[in-house]
Amino acid sequence: MKWIEGGVCAPNGFKAGGIHCGIRNGKDKEDLALIYSSEPCVGAGLFTRNRVKAAPVKLDQKTIRNDSFHAIIANSGIANACAPHDYENAVAMQNAAAKALGIAPETVLVGSTGVIGKDLDVSKIEAGLPALIEALKADGSGSDKAAKAIMTTDTRKKELAVEVELDGTTVHIGGISKGSGMIHPNMGTMLCYLTTDASIKKELLQKALKTVCDRSFNRISVDGDTSTNDSLLILANGLAGNPEIKEESEAFARFTEALEALCVELARRMAADGEGASHLITCTVFHCLGEPRAEILAKSVIRSPLTKAAIFGTDANWGRVLCALGYAGEEFDQDQVTISFRSSYGEIMVCQNGKGLEFDEVLAKAILSEDEVEILVDMNEGEESVTCWGCDLTYDYVKINGDYRT
Amino acid sequence: MKWIEGGVCAPNGFKAGGIHCGIRNGKDKEDLALIYSSEPCVGAGLFTRNRVKAAPVKLDQKTIRNDSFHAIIANSGIANACAPHDYENAVAMQNAAAKALGIAPETVLVGSTGVIGKDLDVSKIEAGLPALIEALKADGSGSDKAAKAIMTTDTRKKELAVEVELDGTTVHIGGISKGSGMIHPNMGTMLCYLTTDASIKKELLQKALKTVCDRSFNRISVDGDTSTNDSLLILANGLAGNPEIKEESEAFARFTEALEALCVELARRMAADGEGASHLITCTVFHCLGEPRAEILAKSVIRSPLTKAAIFGTDANWGRVLCALGYAGEEFDQDQVTISFRSSYGEIMVCQNGKGLEFDEVLAKAILSEDEVEILVDMNEGEESVTCWGCDLTYDYVKINGDYRT
Repeated sequence: MKWIEGGVCAPNGFKAGGIHCGIRNGKDKEDLALIYSSEPCVGAGLFTRNRVKAAPVKLDQKTIRNDSFHAIIANSGIANACAPHDYENAVAMQNAAAKALGIAPETVLVGSTGVIGKDLDVSKIEAGLPALIEALKADGSGSDKAAKAIMTTDTRKKELAVEVELDGTTVHIGGISKGSGMIHPNMGTMLCYLTTDASIKKELLQKALKTVCDRSFNRISVDGDTSTNDSLLILANGLAGNPEIKEESEAFARFTEALEALCVELARRMAADGEGASHLITCTVFHCLGEPRAEILAKSVIRSPLTKAAIFGTDANWGRVLCALGYAGEEFDQDQVTISFRSSYGEIMVCQNGKGLEFDEVLAKAILSEDEVEILVDMNEGEESVTCWGCDLTYDYVKINGDYRT
Repeated sequence: MKWIEGGVCAPNGFKAGGIHCGIRNGKDKEDLALIYSSEPCVGAGLFTRNRVKAAPVKLDQKTIRNDSFHAIIANSGIANACAPHDYENAVAMQNAAAKALGIAPETVLVGSTGVIGKDLDVSKIEAGLPALIEALKADGSGSDKAAKAIMTTDTRKKELAVEVELDGTTVHIGGISKGSGMIHPNMGTMLCYLTTDASIKKELLQKALKTVCDRSFNRISVDGDTSTNDSLLILANGLAGNPEIKEESEAFARFTEALEALCVELARRMAADGEGASHLITCTVFHCLGEPRAEILAKSVIRSPLTKAAIFGTDANWGRVLCALGYAGEEFDQDQVTISFRSSYGEIMVCQNGKGLEFDEVLAKAILSEDEVEILVDMNEGEESVTCWGCDLTYDYVKINGDYRT
């Protein structure tokens, strides 16, 4: 497996693009994205577990049951959730894209992200579609535009691609994602669109996507808020020409592994670009009795506001880490727990067997001043380990969210 | 029932005081509190459900099983948790108070709040005790000092008292509490000490305390972090002379009701004084199918960082309220939910039957600009209602917690 350029356009047969169609008033940033494959694709999807679901999520949950797809259309600016005409607008958006592309509406998936409660003006999408289709590109410039078009408060574009050999054939997987606030395990992403030219049966594509999502997007948290719009979609058009993956073969394992590497890195970048974040926080709980338990403990640490604020302040306040482990809901022996902080600057143990150590505060501060900070929790009880990702809690998070809507 | 002055000294037979003994370096704020009754008391207590417990919590959990108590001693500055000699220092603190007061150690309860992981210097407590005992007062000035001595990042003292007639006798209940960060349901308080001159059997005192705690401290959240040190203690010395409460009588109901009023108001004040808070947020979920369900939904709203940041920004972003209801873990019909904001300025409905309403943004902003903001959630499905309390998320929360320890 190796990293390549091109994002969602890296796989053969996919075009993408993004334009400003006017949904985001007074800004010229791209607000409408389109990903298209003329070759029919199999598709799989995972959606928010929030009981309150946006209209495009409800529509996609029906559409994704179909056998064949050609396109994903998504807008930023308006979430198309809890608005008077939300569902009919999601359907109108799907129909508009289908009509403009000359394909069947049931082959089009839709997505929206932005403000909740306001109606989406689909006429702007209809008006923008000819230019968007005209601008579709099969190279990285198309993926770049699409990745930008789904950004809201994101400060950095998230776009990656990998290639992997399956049964002697080179297969490509690409992805774009957006998500900065309202990010929390249970579908950590707000929107993530993946493409691949692998040939794979729908059931196995869905299985790979679920496995990978649980180990990537579901292990990040920015603020503990799970959005109404979270959607993870993948389209596979088979153009790589590999023997179709029909069972849980060696090729399936390699495909899933490559997909996981891609999604973990997209997830890490979403955590690092959490609203207002100045640090990516990586928490690894290791020597633990079981992976589910390790995940519960690590997630509790990355979502603790007090731990997040301490990392923002480069304060090695490990007591908050131990405290967050303690309220995670798992029983454990506090006198077995050892905690260290690590970054590219170095590593320092601050708590051993549940008791604070005397440590070099200057060194600790230097370690915590790096962009990526690791919190290492040794449970001293087993063999399993899990890593989760989050970010610090900063003034800017409060600023961004104190006045997002108005 | 009526509100009276005097705090923990309002009940007959209780003295209290607070001094600076030097645990908090370089500050002359009181850091050692003592509450004392020469008459033996029955006692009850509730403690943090965090798996990681501070030494004074572990010690009190044993001590509270005894039949008779005279004193509570508590310090601020050092949490006496996860430190090399934490448990022996908690015992030493208990012994020192007992010796200085001339009472048995098993009649003394202890408490600590502050930084985790550093050893408590008990010699400072031993040195300070003679002056503290000398300074004990039976009037409100003693309660005032004790309330101040347990404060850490609190900006306002929390101290209240009520009186209530039980079987023709006037009974008093007083309380002090502290808690500002690390506040979350599952024992919302860090430290709360209650006194009463009611005559009541230990089992019934414990029962009343549990009932009341679930409806007050367990319904507030500042940041979702549950501390290692949370302790709620009550001592009852019987000096009011009411017929002893031995069963769940009318007098028990009235006592519990008065205790609840006291604890709800202490809890509200803790939420309003949440670290960095500029708004008290009161969320009431009503017309709900069942109280537990209403509580889960209301708690999810008050702990949502996005909702908290929106209230800080006086932004009527009701979508975040609906979103927080949606990820609470309860199933419901989003098209039944109606949301309003209310304060002393007025009331405005912003979402009806799951859809956003056109509303007057200027009026909404004026309503949200008051110190106390109510979020009213009508589930339109049943009869039960529950209120929970929280606070907004501000720059100052981040500032306070970015550099608390160093």
